[in-house]
Amino acid sequence: MNRAINFSAGPCTLPLEVLEEAQAEFVDYHGAGMSLVEMSHRSDEYDQVHQEALALSSEVAGAPDDFAPLFIQGGASLQFAMVPMNLLAPGETAGYVDSGAWGTKAIEDGSHHGDLYTAWSGAAEAYRRMPSPVEIDARPASRYLHVTTNETIGGIRMVEWPETDVRLVGDVSSEFMSRPIPWDRFDVVYGGAQKNLGPAGVTVVFVRRSILERTNRNLAAYLRYDVHAATDSLHNTPPVFAVFMMGKVLKWMKASGGLAEMERRAEERAGLLYETIDSSGGFYTSPVEPTSRSMMNVVFRLPTEDLEASFIERATAEGMMNLKGHRSVGGVRASLYNAMPLEGVAALTNLMSEFKAAHG
Amino acid sequence: MNRAINFSAGPCTLPLEVLEEAQAEFVDYHGAGMSLVEMSHRSDEYDQVHQEALALSSEVAGAPDDFAPLFIQGGASLQFAMVPMNLLAPGETAGYVDSGAWGTKAIEDGSHHGDLYTAWSGAAEAYRRMPSPVEIDARPASRYLHVTTNETIGGIRMVEWPETDVRLVGDVSSEFMSRPIPWDRFDVVYGGAQKNLGPAGVTVVFVRRSILERTNRNLAAYLRYDVHAATDSLHNTPPVFAVFMMGKVLKWMKASGGLAEMERRAEERAGLLYETIDSSGGFYTSPVEPTSRSMMNVVFRLPTEDLEASFIERATAEGMMNLKGHRSVGGVRASLYNAMPLEGVAALTNLMSEFKAAHG
Repeated sequence: MNRAINFSAGPCTLPLEVLEEAQAEFVDYHGAGMSLVEMSHRSDEYDQVHQEALALSSEVAGAPDDFAPLFIQGGASLQFAMVPMNLLAPGETAGYVDSGAWGTKAIEDGSHHGDLYTAWSGAAEAYRRMPSPVEIDARPASRYLHVTTNETIGGIRMVEWPETDVRLVGDVSSEFMSRPIPWDRFDVVYGGAQKNLGPAGVTVVFVRRSILERTNRNLAAYLRYDVHAATDSLHNTPPVFAVFMMGKVLKWMKASGGLAEMERRAEERAGLLYETIDSSGGFYTSPVEPTSRSMMNVVFRLPTEDLEASFIERATAEGMMNLKGHRSVGGVRASLYNAMPLEGVAALTNLMSEFKAAHG
Repeated sequence: MNRAINFSAGPCTLPLEVLEEAQAEFVDYHGAGMSLVEMSHRSDEYDQVHQEALALSSEVAGAPDDFAPLFIQGGASLQFAMVPMNLLAPGETAGYVDSGAWGTKAIEDGSHHGDLYTAWSGAAEAYRRMPSPVEIDARPASRYLHVTTNETIGGIRMVEWPETDVRLVGDVSSEFMSRPIPWDRFDVVYGGAQKNLGPAGVTVVFVRRSILERTNRNLAAYLRYDVHAATDSLHNTPPVFAVFMMGKVLKWMKASGGLAEMERRAEERAGLLYETIDSSGGFYTSPVEPTSRSMMNVVFRLPTEDLEASFIERATAEGMMNLKGHRSVGGVRASLYNAMPLEGVAALTNLMSEFKAAHG
């Protein structure tokens, strides 16, 4: 196979060895005469896969024992509802940092299920940066402060974590397991798997165990964090294949050196690309503030939209796929998730140098 | 491979040719140099898979154009919440038929999100049968009447559909696409994929388009039927692999003769097994009323629990897997989903005859 260099923002590139291993096991799982996806979720075989993926989620993320890892379907989008549903009692409020497309959705969706306010918004600055800690207006009585730590579309990330007495809830979807999290500040950390963790279809939600005593019980079981925690996310049929794949990706991360190595690689990859942008004499420009640059989603522009289109066309012809920026912002976006090899970024930066020499 | 005969109640046996085709395509999808699960859900490749699966869902189920097929995560369990959330306006009520484990859960979960009442309950009769249409107390002012048309654990199905002026909402999970549905009586029909349709991780929800104008908008987008309908279930990242597999299973059903043939095979499979039970002179007994017998989940008992255990042990040794009844009811349960070949059932009934001759 002629393996593409896949810069997709998600679902996205996964480790080839994980894909090949899953393929080999797919039809006849460990000699059982059936596929894992044909087995009961109460079977010993699946239970082992499930429990191992739960344990590895905590281990690789560096989550303390005080956090229960939950596997829930519906993506971050369902968490936009479940967070206020579970955490907010009548009369309580929560602050939200509106840092871009996903921060905005979190507030809009969540507002149907709780009394929320905007604690900071980057809208007036076209979401080019994250707030500094002192800019965030987290009212002391707030139940929580919600942050989107990396905005996939805008290409910004929260480099400095908020410093506030209000506990944080974080949507870390697009930078999950690529940097350490200051767990002591958080009550909930969640992210869809379909970036760094595996295929789409499962969301990992870490919930501080001590808050589970007072989360809302007046909800259908599937919407209750305490039910997912008490059942190891086996209240109902889990998304077997998505969990199976996530377990394999987590094992790959652990074997590759864990979170510290994932972070080192992320900085190396993004560093190379930002350096190419910054040293291009203005041919390539980054629309985001240098202090808020994402390590996962690098957004950049060329002098004209025509040049952007021909750059993307040329890259595609050379096997560098999915570089088109999100339809809402345009330009070029290279997503550099954990499974992206440095060689992939080097191929891109080489092309950038060549293209600039030809058109600059 | 020594292919098992898999009687699991779900996740469950799938067509071998579907598994093998998916395996072959898994790492390098149609020569793209990447897996389908690594592609953006906005890519042309995935869009084709997604739209085809949507269209085939309606086609194979025989759903009229008036019904929008939606792909939603979270299983039937999330639908237990979404149905009342979307359909019930303040002051409205809905009736529920409590026909067993799943009917009970539907009411319990739904009660947190709407004013529900029990329109019939089989609890006093240990859920051995479905109600006849005249027994169901559907109050005329009800917004809907919820039915679980097949109870996976109890092994009963609703042979006669309710006759009422109240529109029906049906959880058809464990008999989805194995019999025709009288669509004119329904507003919503839903079922998890992990029985007849594919691996776990997606739920197909058919919603009558004309009711979408008045479903609840005061919900997070992921919980709104109208949002899923307006976006072809692409509001957020769908469970790519689950949809891909479901599309292949639906194609297999269509090529095999469609719904009519699936129903004929179901009757043939279940008929053979029930005939073996009924002609066993009381060695094998069915705890369910003959008029309510499921075609998908056949529950039966042997004279003693010891005999049940040794029967299951013997079957397992011969490659007939997952015959143990649900922990809540015991006994033997053979689930005969669409992908179960008649030969699988024949192997089971042959063993039953042998075992009876040895121990009867």
